[in-house]
Amino acid sequence: MQQSNYPLLEAIGSPQDLKQLRPEQLLEVCREVRDFIIEAVSENPGHFGASLGVVELTVALHYAYSAPYDKLVWDVGHQAYAHKLLTGRLRQFASNRHYGGISGFPRMAESEYDAFGTGHSSTSISAALGMAVAAKLQGEDRHVVAIIGDGAMAGGMAFEGMNNAGIEQANLLVVLNDNNIAIDPSVGALSEYLTRITASRVYNRVKEKVWQKTQRFKPIRLFFQNTGIAIKSSILRQSNLFEALGFRYFGPVDGHDVGKLVKTLEMLRRIPGPKLLHVLTVKGKGYAPAEEDQTLWHAPGLFDRSTGLRRPAAEQAPTYQHVFGATLVELAERNPSIVGITPAMPTGSSLNLMMEQMPDRAFDVGIAEQHAVTFAAGLAAAGKIPFCCVYSTFMQRGYDSIIHDVALQNLHVVICLDRAGLTGEDGATHHGAYDVAYLRCIPNVVVAAPMDGAELRRMMYTAQLPAQRTFAIRYPRGSCLSPAWRQPFAEVEVGKARRLRSGGDIALLSLGHVGHAAAEAARRLALEGIEALHLDMRFAKPLDEEALAEVGRTHTCVITVEDGAIAGGLGSAAAEFFAERGYPVQLVRLGIPDRFVGHGTVAQLQAECGFDAEGVYRAAKRLLAGRG
Amino acid sequence: MQQSNYPLLEAIGSPQDLKQLRPEQLLEVCREVRDFIIEAVSENPGHFGASLGVVELTVALHYAYSAPYDKLVWDVGHQAYAHKLLTGRLRQFASNRHYGGISGFPRMAESEYDAFGTGHSSTSISAALGMAVAAKLQGEDRHVVAIIGDGAMAGGMAFEGMNNAGIEQANLLVVLNDNNIAIDPSVGALSEYLTRITASRVYNRVKEKVWQKTQRFKPIRLFFQNTGIAIKSSILRQSNLFEALGFRYFGPVDGHDVGKLVKTLEMLRRIPGPKLLHVLTVKGKGYAPAEEDQTLWHAPGLFDRSTGLRRPAAEQAPTYQHVFGATLVELAERNPSIVGITPAMPTGSSLNLMMEQMPDRAFDVGIAEQHAVTFAAGLAAAGKIPFCCVYSTFMQRGYDSIIHDVALQNLHVVICLDRAGLTGEDGATHHGAYDVAYLRCIPNVVVAAPMDGAELRRMMYTAQLPAQRTFAIRYPRGSCLSPAWRQPFAEVEVGKARRLRSGGDIALLSLGHVGHAAAEAARRLALEGIEALHLDMRFAKPLDEEALAEVGRTHTCVITVEDGAIAGGLGSAAAEFFAERGYPVQLVRLGIPDRFVGHGTVAQLQAECGFDAEGVYRAAKRLLAGRG
Repeated sequence: MQQSNYPLLEAIGSPQDLKQLRPEQLLEVCREVRDFIIEAVSENPGHFGASLGVVELTVALHYAYSAPYDKLVWDVGHQAYAHKLLTGRLRQFASNRHYGGISGFPRMAESEYDAFGTGHSSTSISAALGMAVAAKLQGEDRHVVAIIGDGAMAGGMAFEGMNNAGIEQANLLVVLNDNNIAIDPSVGALSEYLTRITASRVYNRVKEKVWQKTQRFKPIRLFFQNTGIAIKSSILRQSNLFEALGFRYFGPVDGHDVGKLVKTLEMLRRIPGPKLLHVLTVKGKGYAPAEEDQTLWHAPGLFDRSTGLRRPAAEQAPTYQHVFGATLVELAERNPSIVGITPAMPTGSSLNLMMEQMPDRAFDVGIAEQHAVTFAAGLAAAGKIPFCCVYSTFMQRGYDSIIHDVALQNLHVVICLDRAGLTGEDGATHHGAYDVAYLRCIPNVVVAAPMDGAELRRMMYTAQLPAQRTFAIRYPRGSCLSPAWRQPFAEVEVGKARRLRSGGDIALLSLGHVGHAAAEAARRLALEGIEALHLDMRFAKPLDEEALAEVGRTHTCVITVEDGAIAGGLGSAAAEFFAERGYPVQLVRLGIPDRFVGHGTVAQLQAECGFDAEGVYRAAKRLLAGRG
Repeated sequence: MQQSNYPLLEAIGSPQDLKQLRPEQLLEVCREVRDFIIEAVSENPGHFGASLGVVELTVALHYAYSAPYDKLVWDVGHQAYAHKLLTGRLRQFASNRHYGGISGFPRMAESEYDAFGTGHSSTSISAALGMAVAAKLQGEDRHVVAIIGDGAMAGGMAFEGMNNAGIEQANLLVVLNDNNIAIDPSVGALSEYLTRITASRVYNRVKEKVWQKTQRFKPIRLFFQNTGIAIKSSILRQSNLFEALGFRYFGPVDGHDVGKLVKTLEMLRRIPGPKLLHVLTVKGKGYAPAEEDQTLWHAPGLFDRSTGLRRPAAEQAPTYQHVFGATLVELAERNPSIVGITPAMPTGSSLNLMMEQMPDRAFDVGIAEQHAVTFAAGLAAAGKIPFCCVYSTFMQRGYDSIIHDVALQNLHVVICLDRAGLTGEDGATHHGAYDVAYLRCIPNVVVAAPMDGAELRRMMYTAQLPAQRTFAIRYPRGSCLSPAWRQPFAEVEVGKARRLRSGGDIALLSLGHVGHAAAEAARRLALEGIEALHLDMRFAKPLDEEALAEVGRTHTCVITVEDGAIAGGLGSAAAEFFAERGYPVQLVRLGIPDRFVGHGTVAQLQAECGFDAEGVYRAAKRLLAGRG
């Protein structure tokens, strides 16, 4: 019988088992957890560097606190693999991010140890404060801990949570996991501030010394006595950003010293009220290649753990992201008004191409979607044409900024919604499902969706023309389906659909890349003698009413296909049109149904939702059968 | 000929005229501006206290800077009356907030001096940074100033803006207008921090002294020499929250000393990079009753300026807000799990009733909509039932929190959308137009709208029952249309419409308070022998499909009526249903059309949009004429 590489870890069915170990055994637990993650993620791709960075912190937290009675809230949550392994999910871990398997993020429905589901950043302090306040109201002595990275701490919502927590005397510990990187390196004044604190390790000690020394000086002592202000509140409390916000600040401490972490946390457990522990960690800790290139190893895909060589992904056409990044550089070279903005996703969005070539015209503003959009509005008010690129799901954060700051003022901002539609393994928190629905109701906004990379390029070109104002383009993650995307620039007529196929039996109206699924379904139908009209609508708004009127006049069976929420999307727009004009159409709307869709490959999820080629084909057959 | 009370002010056609005056004349300008505002607002209701508080600051800014070349961005914007008076809108000011008149907020379309339109809070820093960065890119030496209150500064977006501005070396001045109050008194750790700074007026001087003294101490000097950290960055820069964020901090200064303000601003103009000037002002300054009760005098309505007596508004039934506040207290008395949350609108929402009676269970979290919703999610995850009350238009800020933190986890949070629909004189930034559209696409969410106060009460009762999860209730500002609203608690069947009238000629489907307009239209049609079926849908989601199927079977002419965006609203839901079922219905959707609607009385705006009783009546006649 082979000896296990993870004897301690395999004996830990829950944190209660961990807590039975002696403190000196924790080092070995950390080694096993780290090795297990390296082995598991090398064979089953997932988030990597973030979880490696918090192995010691996770072990220490579960050792010092008593989950699930005590609550651990993992901000963003892609660093929670060690947490999952220590809370009964070791044996399921091979199913991580697989269809039907466990989620790559904490999920309340998955485990009682997942105190709060995450995926988007900067929510943990607010959620943890809610739990801490509930405990206070119920007279419970439970502890609540939010673990948040320095990148996420820069998100406005985290500040809102801190600002509120600083006045609620609830038992909340915020662990600031400072590794100076989110997916890309952290940017912003807060990040620089944390670097300054960290650079002056003895900062706290010096602060004390300054105070001790000044005590001896009569004028200053007299000042404090005269004003009647507590010493703490006038100098010490103002001397740190977090203390200014009403938190007791501790740190910085080495986040890879599990023994010290346990002692520190046990001390902090005894201190009531809001506290912040500043922990320094290294993303990718313990795996040299991941420490070396932290962005690449955020989610490296398959790799050989002994050599650190990443296995190349299957050959695929250029991605929409690459088309976006490269086209933006070309457009910016021609049009000096163009600037680029990303909230902390330069690599993921490919805005890094522009940042490298035109550093003064491309901005990574940190995890700050609201600011990203309103910053764009300010630039546009001053004559610039910003391409503001935000993942569709994260743009839910910038929604008010789009309405109130951009569209209401009819400003020329190009809103690039990356990763629109089902995104795959990241699951429910990351699908870009709602953008068409939430944008379509806003006046003045164009909502476009390219069927392939070449069309994305044309839409980007169109969007920056002087005649345009607020112009949103949504496109999915991954292959752009057109190797020959680099066509000469050409304008797309806004609000005009494209006829891809003619046919009298049924009409297929598609939006965006799912046009390929619709086209495939149409081909299959044709083999059976069923002739489908296929329109690539290209714009959810404005709608091509002329084309739709023709559909209404000539067809009774209509199917809309989109990679987005059915409620409120293109299908709704078509339904509105047909019902208002009184066309006696029977409409089937395909897309993301009215429930939260989980994780799996994009193909699996599209099939589950029924808008892959097979789904469109079947829907057409059903519709035609029902009609006669 | 009567002598003018405002000789200087009337001679100021633009800031250029102001800049011709001698510094010592500014005191008199301030007196005139203040008196003018008092006179004008006493006769034509509007925002009051905020503008009185910044008279000197506004005069000083326009004196020291050169708008419109330099850009002044007024956060929120309800404090911009003095700005409007000094920028050519004195004679139009009697039309302030009137239908067709000038806006009560800065509006780019209204004046070149309104550098950026505002209405929602906390946007100014981001927008101003965009302008400052644009100026830098264009090599222009223009100055950009964001003027932001301490309440708005606590909004997460302001922090995001600061965090980004602190690393962009753009010429940005943030004027922190600290009056310790938004509409209700400011809350939160930042507010307490500002109070501490202010209480220790000589703070800056002391800081210097501390530093001078510590210089003499060898160990500390050595530490700085050894670490190689610049002195500024290790102690001085960390000694203030704003300096920690990369801003140079100045202040606090007296915001009512116009001479000192001018000198300070002229000095600041010469300092490049991001700067923050902390200005202390008194909301309502110079009008005793307004200084006395600042919340009441935020927007006092008509008043007698000599006596300070507010003229009572016309008698009206209790407001929806009152029904909400009083009912929540009653429910909370019966159900100990209920808690209440407002982001800085306790008085406006009437959550103050609960805050007074159950201070430990009702939370004002400051201007922080994202946090408010996710805080509610945390409370719900711990077994509480939060009623999270946010104005519909501001909930656009909490959109991601609703999706990601509440609905996705199917948490029992009651989302109360106050001021849903057209809100009147505040105009485009404040209408709650989009909530039905942006909520209807989210799985797991109930979207309810009561037709009157009694129904609001029943819906609130229903929403807190154990069977419910995420439950949104939208209701408008103002009279709840049912004096006898305090009925015994009774459950409303979720997803069930209410038949108010039967008739075979046409079907009217209404949502919320506009049911009254639809009912009135139905009565008028009946007088002409046209019989209308009228359903109060009560729920935009889930839809009463049974009732709609009957409508589809029995009617071809259908009108939906709602006080919200037509695109994506109840009418869309009905269109989806009819088109999917293939009912040959001709549908007319009434509501807020696909453009931004301005300001005026609610009645004027509803008439403009065509969904008052007259509008519904006419639409019915047109539809029937077209059909028959």
